[in-house]
Amino acid sequence: MFVVIFRAQVVQLDARYSTMAAQLRERALNQFGCLEFVAVTEGDEEIALSYWDSEAAIQAWRENSEHQVAQTLGKASWYQHYSVEVAQIQRRYQRGS
Amino acid sequence: MFVVIFRAQVVQLDARYSTMAAQLRERALNQFGCLEFVAVTEGDEEIALSYWDSEAAIQAWRENSEHQVAQTLGKASWYQHYSVEVAQIQRRYQRGS
Repeated sequence: MFVVIFRAQVVQLDARYSTMAAQLRERALNQFGCLEFVAVTEGDEEIALSYWDSEAAIQAWRENSEHQVAQTLGKASWYQHYSVEVAQIQRRYQRGS
Repeated sequence: MFVVIFRAQVVQLDARYSTMAAQLRERALNQFGCLEFVAVTEGDEEIALSYWDSEAAIQAWRENSEHQVAQTLGKASWYQHYSVEVAQIQRRYQRGS
């Protein structure tokens, strides 16, 4: 399994951001095979994690036109800086209910 | 490079947590070769990312006694649920200043 780690320094998130983020999340999960999506923001720092079965699925999602519009808006309006890391999960353990 | 993804559902974070989290962060960075550490909490959801050169470094840190005490306290006091994923970074790109 693969995880895409999106880390950003937020300038300003507006109503358009909320709408688009929700749409993209649904699209990734329902149409592009995203297994799980979680995003956490504290102050100006955002981390979003998405989980995928294959690099091909990640690539297809990356090239989706709606996603590309969001990327362009992100660069122009919402984020001062961001990074994307693609990583392959070696192992996982969990604890608790 | 490897990333350790810690995800938790927080029950309650107290003063002891803050002190220990700061100590552990310094220890990981200064004595165990952690390359970068970032943690973001929103509501009851926490994501912490730490970056490492090797799985051996991750293992050494995992076995550190101070870290193990924190893990025990985390299970008992601070977290309802948490997961740890170890992943190898395949590629990374970034944008912005």
